Amino acid sequence: MLTEAVKQQLCEVVGSKYYKDDMEALITHSFDGTPMLQSLPDGVIYPASTQEVSGIMKVLSQHKIPIVGRGSGTNLCGGTVPIQGGVVMVMHRMNRILELDTQNLTATVQPGLITAQFIEQVEQAGLFYPPDPSSMSISTIGGNIAECSGGLRGLKYGTTKDYVLGLEAVLASGEIIRTGGKLMKDVAGYDLTKLLIGSEGTLAIITEATLKLVPKPPYKKTMLAMFHDLYDAAKTVSAIIEQRIIPATLEFLDNATIRVVDDFAKLGLPHHVEAMLIIEQDGDPSTVERDIAAIAEICEQYHADKIQIAETSEEAEKLLTARRSAFTALARLKPTTILEDATVPRSKIADMVLAINRIAEKYQVQICTFGHAGDGNLHPTAMTDARDEEEVARVEQAFAEIFEAAISLGGTITGEHGVGIVKAPYLEWKVGSSGVALMQGIKAVFDPDHLLNPGKMFAKSAKKRVVLHRD
Amino acid sequence: MLTEAVKQQLCEVVGSKYYKDDMEALITHSFDGTPMLQSLPDGVIYPASTQEVSGIMKVLSQHKIPIVGRGSGTNLCGGTVPIQGGVVMVMHRMNRILELDTQNLTATVQPGLITAQFIEQVEQAGLFYPPDPSSMSISTIGGNIAECSGGLRGLKYGTTKDYVLGLEAVLASGEIIRTGGKLMKDVAGYDLTKLLIGSEGTLAIITEATLKLVPKPPYKKTMLAMFHDLYDAAKTVSAIIEQRIIPATLEFLDNATIRVVDDFAKLGLPHHVEAMLIIEQDGDPSTVERDIAAIAEICEQYHADKIQIAETSEEAEKLLTARRSAFTALARLKPTTILEDATVPRSKIADMVLAINRIAEKYQVQICTFGHAGDGNLHPTAMTDARDEEEVARVEQAFAEIFEAAISLGGTITGEHGVGIVKAPYLEWKVGSSGVALMQGIKAVFDPDHLLNPGKMFAKSAKKRVVLHRD
Repeated sequence: MLTEAVKQQLCEVVGSKYYKDDMEALITHSFDGTPMLQSLPDGVIYPASTQEVSGIMKVLSQHKIPIVGRGSGTNLCGGTVPIQGGVVMVMHRMNRILELDTQNLTATVQPGLITAQFIEQVEQAGLFYPPDPSSMSISTIGGNIAECSGGLRGLKYGTTKDYVLGLEAVLASGEIIRTGGKLMKDVAGYDLTKLLIGSEGTLAIITEATLKLVPKPPYKKTMLAMFHDLYDAAKTVSAIIEQRIIPATLEFLDNATIRVVDDFAKLGLPHHVEAMLIIEQDGDPSTVERDIAAIAEICEQYHADKIQIAETSEEAEKLLTARRSAFTALARLKPTTILEDATVPRSKIADMVLAINRIAEKYQVQICTFGHAGDGNLHPTAMTDARDEEEVARVEQAFAEIFEAAISLGGTITGEHGVGIVKAPYLEWKVGSSGVALMQGIKAVFDPDHLLNPGKMFAKSAKKRVVLHRD
Repeated sequence: MLTEAVKQQLCEVVGSKYYKDDMEALITHSFDGTPMLQSLPDGVIYPASTQEVSGIMKVLSQHKIPIVGRGSGTNLCGGTVPIQGGVVMVMHRMNRILELDTQNLTATVQPGLITAQFIEQVEQAGLFYPPDPSSMSISTIGGNIAECSGGLRGLKYGTTKDYVLGLEAVLASGEIIRTGGKLMKDVAGYDLTKLLIGSEGTLAIITEATLKLVPKPPYKKTMLAMFHDLYDAAKTVSAIIEQRIIPATLEFLDNATIRVVDDFAKLGLPHHVEAMLIIEQDGDPSTVERDIAAIAEICEQYHADKIQIAETSEEAEKLLTARRSAFTALARLKPTTILEDATVPRSKIADMVLAINRIAEKYQVQICTFGHAGDGNLHPTAMTDARDEEEVARVEQAFAEIFEAAISLGGTITGEHGVGIVKAPYLEWKVGSSGVALMQGIKAVFDPDHLLNPGKMFAKSAKKRVVLHRD
C-alpha cells in the first residue's frame, strides 16, 4: 500500500489523471501474457515523458517502492507481473516515432510505440525493421527491447538486439543516461546498450531508442513442404543452410500441431505427416527464385511428401496461416496453454523434438511443438488446465526436463521469451553459478535497492537438475 | 618486480620455458601499435590452455599482481601497454581453430589465432567471416574481440560484436565462465557475451570464442570515384544509402591523403581532387552489377570528376591499394603517426572532415583524413615527431577538439580502436559521468581488485571540455 503522501507526490509528477489505484486498474495490471501468474500492484502510473519517468523514479526510490515498467504485457515469462507489489509504470502514452532518418537509416522512437505500427510506417518509407515477434500487433518496442524479442525472421536478420543502436534510459535513482547513438561503430566503453537489451526492466526504464533500419527487400516468396519423417525435415533444414542459403523464415510444425491447426483453420493439411516446414525467402527477385528452386530440390532430396510454392501473395498468406494460427489453435484445446521456448543449435532440432515427445510421454502430458527451425528456437506448447494441480505439476516437471535436454544439446532455457519469473529457477543451469553471481553484481550496480522489477530473472534458489549434465 | 616465489608458482603452471623476464622479453612487451606509449612489465607468460590461464590468474590474484592479456598488440589506444607493470599474458600459443561447424555455420576458435589466417580457412569452406580490421594479417581474434574491431566491411556486415555468439573466459579469480553458445537466439539473463566484447581485457581473459559465419558472397566488384568538391563526395555517400543500396565497402580519402598515397604508391591519382571514394559491392552477380551501375550514376549526378570500375580482380586490387596503403604512406612522412578514429553519423561526414581541416589549421598541425565513409568512421591522422614536445602538445589539443566536434555532431570518441589509455580522459564526454560510474561498477563486479589491465578505459580524471557542448 502506498501512503497518501507518496500518491500525492506521484500525482504531482504526472497529474492525478495518470495515477490510478482503483481495483479495475490494479487487476488489469496484475497479470501479463503468462498463464497462472497474478499479483496486484499498489498503483498504476502513466508517464508522458522522460522527465516524468525520472520524477517518478525519484519519488519511488526515496520511499523504496518497487517499480515494474510495462508495455502491453504480452511477454510469456511473467516478466511484468508485479510479484512484490509497488507501482506498475505503463509506457503507452510515450508512443511516438520521434524521427525517421532516411539518411542514416535510423528511427528514434518512444518505448510505448506498437511494434506493428512502427513496422508499417517504416515500410511505407521503403525501409525494413526485421524483428517480428508473434505478438507484434499488440507488443511495444520498449517491451521488445526489454525482452530482446525475436520472431520469424531471426535466422536471416537477427533479433531486437541487432537493431538497437542507442538508448535513453532512467536509472532507479531517477538519473537519465544515454548510450550509443546513430552510429554503426562505437566502442567508447562497455556496451551498455546491449546490456540493457533483454535486461527485462531490472536495470533501468527505457525511455527512447534509436533503431537501425535496413532497405526493404523488394521481393519475397513462400513455400511449404510436408515430411513423413521428422529426421528428413530436420536434415532438410541443415542441408539448406549447408548449401549456403539463409532463408528469411524457416518454420517448423510437428504432427500434433498440424492436426490442431488444420482442425481450427480448415487448411486441408494432411494429418499423417510428421513435420511441415514453411520457408520464405526475400531479396532480389532473381536470387529469391533461385533460392526457392534450390530449397525445393533439397526438400525433394530428403523425401518431402508434398511441396507447395505460393504463386501469389494471397497463396503465401494462406501457407503462412498454418504457422501464424498455431498458438491460437492450440489455445482452444484446453483452458491453459503454456508456450515455452527451449532453443538448441539448429543441427540438433530433430534430437530436441524427439526428446520433447519422449518427455511428454513420460509425464503423460500433451505437448505440441512448432517454432523457428532455422535458428533452433522451438516452442514446445503444453495444453493443460490450471485448476488441475496434479497435471500442472507434471507439466512443470516435463518442462524442467525439456530445459535440461536443451542444455545438454548445447542449447538454452530461453531463446526469445526471457527469464522473468518462469525461468528464474533454471537460469543457473545455463549460465552457471558464476554467471548468476556476475549478473546479480551488475544488477546491484544499476539498482542497489532492488526496486526495478524485483523478483525477476534471479530465483531465491536454483532448481535441482533432473538429469546429470555434461561437464 | 615479482618475487622468486611467485615466478616459481607461475613456472609450475606453464613450465619454465613459457615464463620470461629477461630484458628482451620485457622490452618487446612494453609497447603496442600506439605511438609514444611504453612501460615495462615485470614478466611475460605464454599459456597453452584455459586451465593454464586459470592457474595463472589464481597465482596473480593471490598476490594482487596486475595482468595484461595480449594478442599481437596491434591496437592503437595503448590497450596492451602494461602501465602498472605486472605480467603480460601472450595468447599466441592458443591459436587453433577448434571446430568449423558447417551445419550450424559457426567456428570455435582460440584467442591467439591470427585473423587473416582464420578468414582464409573459413573462405576455403565457402564461408565468410566479415570483420576485417586493417591489422588483420597480424592481429588475433582474441584481440579483435577485446577491442571490438571493425574494418572496411562494417557498413554492410557490422563489426566483431555481430559475429561472436559465445565465449569462454577466465575471471580475475581464476574462475572459468561460459557465455552464449551456437545459438542465434539466447536471452538467458544479461548478455555477458556482448559485455565482454570490447571490454579491452579489463573484465576477463577470453580463452575461446564461438563465431558466427555467413555464406561467402559469390561475386564482388570494385569502383572508384573522384570529386572536386568534398560536399559532393559526402552527398554521394548519403545518396547511395538513401537509394537503399548498402555497399560492402564505402571508403573515403581526402586530398592530403590522396597526394601522399600517390607519391608513395605511384598510382597516377589526380592531385587536385578534394575527395576520393572507393566502393565495393558483393553478392549475387546480377545484384552487384545493378548496384554498381546505380552507384556510378549517383556519382555522376553529384559531379564526380572521374569514375573507374574495375573489370578484373587485378584492377580491383589496384583501386583498393590506394586505401590500403594510406596508413603506410602517411607513416613515411614524419617519425610519429597518430591515427585516430572519431566517428559520426554518416550524414555528418562532410561536416566532420571540414571541422578536422579547420582544427588542423587552428593548431598548425598536419592532419590527413581517410576512413570508412559508409559508417561515418573516419581516421584523422596526424604526422608529427614525438621528440618535438611542443608540436605533440598541439596535436593533442587538436585531437581533443576533434573528439569534441565528433560528439557535437552526434558521434563518438572511438568507432573501432577502443578507449585504452589514449581515450580514457575523453570517455566521460561520450557516456557522461553516470555512464562512467556504471562502467566502473561493472568493472568492480568482475575484477574487485582491479588486476585486469589496470589503468585502461577509466582515467583518474576526465579531460576538461574545450568547447561548450549540447545539453
